[in-house]
Amino acid sequence: MIEIIPYFADRLADAVRRKKNAICLGIDPRWESLPKSIRDRHDAQSLDSVAKAFEVFSLRVLELVGAKVPVVKPQAAFFEACGPEGFLAMQSILRRCREMNLVSILDAKRGDIASTAIAYADAAFSASVWRADALTVNPYLGRDAIEPFLQTARKAENGVFVLVRTSNPGGGLFQNLVCDGKPLYQHVAEAVSSWNVERIGDCGLGDVGAVVGATHPRELAELRQLMPNVWFLIPGYGAQGGTASDVKLGFREDGLGAIVNSSRGLTFPFQPDDPNWETAIVCAVDDMMNALN
Amino acid sequence: MIEIIPYFADRLADAVRRKKNAICLGIDPRWESLPKSIRDRHDAQSLDSVAKAFEVFSLRVLELVGAKVPVVKPQAAFFEACGPEGFLAMQSILRRCREMNLVSILDAKRGDIASTAIAYADAAFSASVWRADALTVNPYLGRDAIEPFLQTARKAENGVFVLVRTSNPGGGLFQNLVCDGKPLYQHVAEAVSSWNVERIGDCGLGDVGAVVGATHPRELAELRQLMPNVWFLIPGYGAQGGTASDVKLGFREDGLGAIVNSSRGLTFPFQPDDPNWETAIVCAVDDMMNALN
Repeated sequence: MIEIIPYFADRLADAVRRKKNAICLGIDPRWESLPKSIRDRHDAQSLDSVAKAFEVFSLRVLELVGAKVPVVKPQAAFFEACGPEGFLAMQSILRRCREMNLVSILDAKRGDIASTAIAYADAAFSASVWRADALTVNPYLGRDAIEPFLQTARKAENGVFVLVRTSNPGGGLFQNLVCDGKPLYQHVAEAVSSWNVERIGDCGLGDVGAVVGATHPRELAELRQLMPNVWFLIPGYGAQGGTASDVKLGFREDGLGAIVNSSRGLTFPFQPDDPNWETAIVCAVDDMMNALN
Repeated sequence: MIEIIPYFADRLADAVRRKKNAICLGIDPRWESLPKSIRDRHDAQSLDSVAKAFEVFSLRVLELVGAKVPVVKPQAAFFEACGPEGFLAMQSILRRCREMNLVSILDAKRGDIASTAIAYADAAFSASVWRADALTVNPYLGRDAIEPFLQTARKAENGVFVLVRTSNPGGGLFQNLVCDGKPLYQHVAEAVSSWNVERIGDCGLGDVGAVVGATHPRELAELRQLMPNVWFLIPGYGAQGGTASDVKLGFREDGLGAIVNSSRGLTFPFQPDDPNWETAIVCAVDDMMNALN
């Protein structure tokens, strides 16, 4: 029997509709932020033990709020900082996302050319490595560097999110440079839009998404116009300063088209010695759902 | 006793002077290119076994030519494609580089903001994770995204190489866009140059290098003028089409200032069933040394 995998854009739309919210739960584990009860059972001096603590914590977060949110975004850097054992933890978390029918975005911001890009894409999407539903990628190397990511993603009905306008305060240094009458990030946006229209799903959106920071609301609105059929992944909500009214500008009129990431705000809304940290996580997700809806 | 670690730029200059060549040996292992004798002892169906084969092959390459070349550049993507076990292989190769007093550049093209960038940089430079001498980074996210990489690298007397002009045919899509009268890659070059002059070593070069492809000789010469004190990492030699006379334009008049990478050309100059593959690797390195000198 052949399993029919729905198109990535539709899988994402379906998840958002089913869960009735557009939250992307960012998994950015940090040792110093973990609940004391978890730290006490692990050893800060051993990277393997820290990786294990990241896994225990992240899987517990998924148990707590995985039924509420549609999308989960593990940040590869924090797992890489634990060495090879960290990637075992990341793999275990991505596997649990799949079991829970959550859409997973591996936030690794990869970017390279030719066979090297294929190797990164294979890692991201192959069943025996990370098997994410989508990967974040960097556009600086151009279309032929994005192409291998796209092709590999599409073969397995997955997607990519291309960095367009990042949420950091200094993100404009190059992204805002004006080239041929418009800022660089708009050139990237137009490229993303053209790559994206190659395949549009039933939901009216495609499989080449854009990362657009919540910290630049004016640009968010402008980019929504420029890329009408593109899924937006919006970081910068909460801890970085973006508000619910800021991110509203990233959505389409049909209420689809964007997912809003929060990492620290959802997974660490407590002091490490707070015995009620689990309740705090559930409340943080509920609060964000209410704020967005 | 405190060990005095020489400044990165001087360590690199010293290695190039000692070995009397500026070769950067790229380690990009691919299963289908490995010698048959190594493949026969491993299992293509098991990623763990493929990772082990990558390690065995790469360590043998270092034994064969590690005394000849000054710099080694493992490409993270090929190890990531083997999952967690792949990173164990990468770690083992980087450790051997250190034992052999080879300057190692981890080619991972990382780029992210704030604490995420710190996590990547910690992974690259910390003694318990990869402990590379340098890391390649992507400039798209701007100075505050590069800053954590720089700070972490400098704390351990290491360096970074920022992508300026990449070697792929479509690299110009955004890099060649003209902003305020000059192409984007020149803006990036000027930024790299200004970050680099913050610390110049005895050799007259700094710890913020630039990746500039050998496939664009005109731009290589122009960038050499724009970034007089910057170490260049030049990919694209050999398999990608760059020649010895092309890369010459990337060097300073004192013969320093650039290292020239070759990956496939040096590590896979043989057919998999060639029993004399080890001799082929030694000859390929000798040939490149002669061509460059």
